[in-house]
Amino acid sequence: MITGKNYIGNELSAKGNITFNTFDPKLNIPTEWNFHEATDGEIDTAAEKAQSAFKVYKNTSGEQRADFLIAIAEEIEGLGDVLIESYMKESGLPEGRAKGERGRTMGQLRAFANLLEEGSWIDATIDTAQPERQPLPKTDIRKMQVPIGPIAVFGSSNFPLAFSTAGGDTASALAAGCPVIVKSHPMHAGTGELVASAMIRAVERTGMPDGVFSNLNSSGIEVGQKLVMHPNVKGVGFTGSIRGGTALYQLANERKEPIPVFAEMGSINPVVALPGALMAKGEDWAKSYAGSITLGAGQFCTNPGLLLGVKGKELEEFGSILGKEIEKIEPGCMLHPNIHKGYEKGKEELSSQSKTEVVASFDTEVPPNYGKQRILKVDGSDFMANPKLHQEVFGPFSVLVQCENTDELEKVIDQLEGQLTGTVLGNEEELENYGPVVEALKNRVGRLIFNGVPTGVEVCPSMQHGGPFPASTDSRFTSVGTSAIQRWVRPVSYQNWPQNHLPDALKDNNPLGIMRLVDGKYTTSKI
Amino acid sequence: MITGKNYIGNELSAKGNITFNTFDPKLNIPTEWNFHEATDGEIDTAAEKAQSAFKVYKNTSGEQRADFLIAIAEEIEGLGDVLIESYMKESGLPEGRAKGERGRTMGQLRAFANLLEEGSWIDATIDTAQPERQPLPKTDIRKMQVPIGPIAVFGSSNFPLAFSTAGGDTASALAAGCPVIVKSHPMHAGTGELVASAMIRAVERTGMPDGVFSNLNSSGIEVGQKLVMHPNVKGVGFTGSIRGGTALYQLANERKEPIPVFAEMGSINPVVALPGALMAKGEDWAKSYAGSITLGAGQFCTNPGLLLGVKGKELEEFGSILGKEIEKIEPGCMLHPNIHKGYEKGKEELSSQSKTEVVASFDTEVPPNYGKQRILKVDGSDFMANPKLHQEVFGPFSVLVQCENTDELEKVIDQLEGQLTGTVLGNEEELENYGPVVEALKNRVGRLIFNGVPTGVEVCPSMQHGGPFPASTDSRFTSVGTSAIQRWVRPVSYQNWPQNHLPDALKDNNPLGIMRLVDGKYTTSKI
Repeated sequence: MITGKNYIGNELSAKGNITFNTFDPKLNIPTEWNFHEATDGEIDTAAEKAQSAFKVYKNTSGEQRADFLIAIAEEIEGLGDVLIESYMKESGLPEGRAKGERGRTMGQLRAFANLLEEGSWIDATIDTAQPERQPLPKTDIRKMQVPIGPIAVFGSSNFPLAFSTAGGDTASALAAGCPVIVKSHPMHAGTGELVASAMIRAVERTGMPDGVFSNLNSSGIEVGQKLVMHPNVKGVGFTGSIRGGTALYQLANERKEPIPVFAEMGSINPVVALPGALMAKGEDWAKSYAGSITLGAGQFCTNPGLLLGVKGKELEEFGSILGKEIEKIEPGCMLHPNIHKGYEKGKEELSSQSKTEVVASFDTEVPPNYGKQRILKVDGSDFMANPKLHQEVFGPFSVLVQCENTDELEKVIDQLEGQLTGTVLGNEEELENYGPVVEALKNRVGRLIFNGVPTGVEVCPSMQHGGPFPASTDSRFTSVGTSAIQRWVRPVSYQNWPQNHLPDALKDNNPLGIMRLVDGKYTTSKI
Repeated sequence: MITGKNYIGNELSAKGNITFNTFDPKLNIPTEWNFHEATDGEIDTAAEKAQSAFKVYKNTSGEQRADFLIAIAEEIEGLGDVLIESYMKESGLPEGRAKGERGRTMGQLRAFANLLEEGSWIDATIDTAQPERQPLPKTDIRKMQVPIGPIAVFGSSNFPLAFSTAGGDTASALAAGCPVIVKSHPMHAGTGELVASAMIRAVERTGMPDGVFSNLNSSGIEVGQKLVMHPNVKGVGFTGSIRGGTALYQLANERKEPIPVFAEMGSINPVVALPGALMAKGEDWAKSYAGSITLGAGQFCTNPGLLLGVKGKELEEFGSILGKEIEKIEPGCMLHPNIHKGYEKGKEELSSQSKTEVVASFDTEVPPNYGKQRILKVDGSDFMANPKLHQEVFGPFSVLVQCENTDELEKVIDQLEGQLTGTVLGNEEELENYGPVVEALKNRVGRLIFNGVPTGVEVCPSMQHGGPFPASTDSRFTSVGTSAIQRWVRPVSYQNWPQNHLPDALKDNNPLGIMRLVDGKYTTSKI
């Protein structure tokens, strides 16, 4: 049941008088669910509970935390259709997507549970003593990762489940041993509360400390700001706009004790379409890209917003087929009137730039809040001269840039801001012949894709979801995949520490059986 | 020969008119060496050369970079006594320390060469394709670390060799595949230039690209600021004061594209002296700590500036023996009149705080620039009430805090800012009985030491040198030990990338023979 209250640790709480409703974008009316904004007092209590919970939670075993994550997945599944219905109502997204995203959310929780059970992620590194070393003896030193403290997680608008309440940021922080305070996304606060209720049941079921998880409602920015500035909060996970993420990043750096902010922000995900690929499979790629650009009404951070190529018959044909294909696709409902308004505004703003030309545009009337796709075309030199064209338009929109030659193509890529992904459509020979273009692309992105589409982000150890600024605030970390746990830990060395008092991960007999770096060699053996 | 010029890549350059001399603190007169400050044009050229060099250098093999690092070590050794003499003259430090630090500097370079030859640091992670997976096939994804770009390194005052020109920051960045521009420390610009000349010889000898290393002179802050703001610079390494490091950190965050700043700043390195240890070995510990506090005239970032204990006979005796022992020690020459002046000012400022008492003070006359040791004593409640007493005084100075009981001891530790190290003097039983105290300490530090002194930092894989802010700007990384390389890299994923075009680290047949995480299992095997 959706109560509209906050979870301050395990307690439902509604001390504030400011309330807001979520919105059904398909019916274009507010939902019946009314939410109480968290008050300053509630934020403080959540932060204090998180601090107390941390003292216990950081010392739970990997196995205990794995059980907790699995219990969360089970409780989410246990919510049944109620969750799917609130998801659809608050997001306008279809049932298939809702169920797929629920599966991914549970899959992520289970992937982190597996990671904890395997245990090597803790990076145990041991250098044993050398008492006979000259000129000075060497003492025993052992290092492992420890959790940094309570984390504030900001739910994202476009992933009500997989990147919100119990999404990737929360799952990775809880896996690391950090309590989490979620600032629920106001567009799907009901879905958020349902998931939070499942999480609280999992907290109680597995005996985790009260305060290890809280869920705060807010329709404005103040609750989030207060959370980021709270001295008990030691890190922030965010998925959203460049403006929002950068503001939180700057705020966190102004604290007396700055804290890391992992903001996954904008990306236009450049796609380099080389002539060989277009010659061989231009029509297929045009169809794939029409699908990728409009997938989920274009509301993915990996949406291909920039198609790059060298002028010629192949690129022209590709553009023309892409245009025809994309006009055939039925537009989808966007997440919220504000998202839709932002999309239409951005689309028109870019379309009105001089030297741009519309390749394709869906212009038939659609219901309110549906995002109508459009493709623009511009020359490489005009694109480089106008940074407005480099901006992300969040929705089913893409710009096709026609470069004069390979040099110009390389220059265009060099000038791009940091991106999550970069794709090359080509044949193997072209990878060789366009070496500097591919190198330039690699320099601007976190993930390179060969002959594919950037949408569809695998949750696996090898995934890098994050790229040079402003794709994310810290390109050294990923927000998708099991490596995301590394954002919430820091190493601690134990020097000359007695065996019995070392954490299990660092004991001579390796009771966890994990991979460790011992005296420079990787091994799962005892010492 | 010391020319007083900058190295802009491989070229000696002195385009500016502003010059400064280094200083001989023992003779208390300027040296004969006169240095040209780098001009804006020289900074730009160094940054442009670094950018061009990066395009080549990032694609060198681990073996090539290992050869380069070894060549640097050899060329530094080849400088012979000239280097030792300039080091001693510009720092006032004795010959033994100069030679020891040279050995450590070469050792660090060789340790990174070994790391590159071994190769697993690159974190190769492979998830192979599952074309049959339902509901969607899984594509092949492979991830590894790549260098982030040119790095600005700020030489430290207290390690003219091991944390300056070719020190830990430079060695780790070059190992990662990043060009380096050093802002030479003005107190030992001559020693810096000698090392730079050795590095340039190594660049030429091993065929590395011009611009992979530059060395800029500057006595003020402008050259460093300009460097940090230069768009070609992608990361910063700094060792020095909280004020200096925080200023660079804030500056870097104000860039259009913020970049990481790894500043290793202040620390007072709390030592918790438990009664059992003092009862058993109080006199030995007092002697060890008299030595640790005055080692190198107290000019180490791991200098124990804070001794914590619970009131009682044991702590009183320990303080009294420590006082006697420390007064016996002959003061040493400090690095520079400014450092000495800062020390005397800080020492007097803390000594003049109410409720403090002098335990021991060396007050006999000494030559100019010699740092005279002092120990203060204060009660736990008074210490907590006065944050001034928590400040680092860079030199042979320490505050002994007497707590009423264990609870107060824990509170004092909880209130401390982040620290590089925390030490426990105790017996094993005490580790158990004082669990919350040890946990509190762990929460504030990067390295825990049992029954030892914090000075003396091993260069090894398990070393964590860095702690919660303000000990360092990013507690998730170390500036000492081979893990320091992780500061200068970011992961890139290759999705569906053809075998022949993958980096060697990610190829099926594992030509580098490195440890990789393949489909969730650690292995050095081929796929």
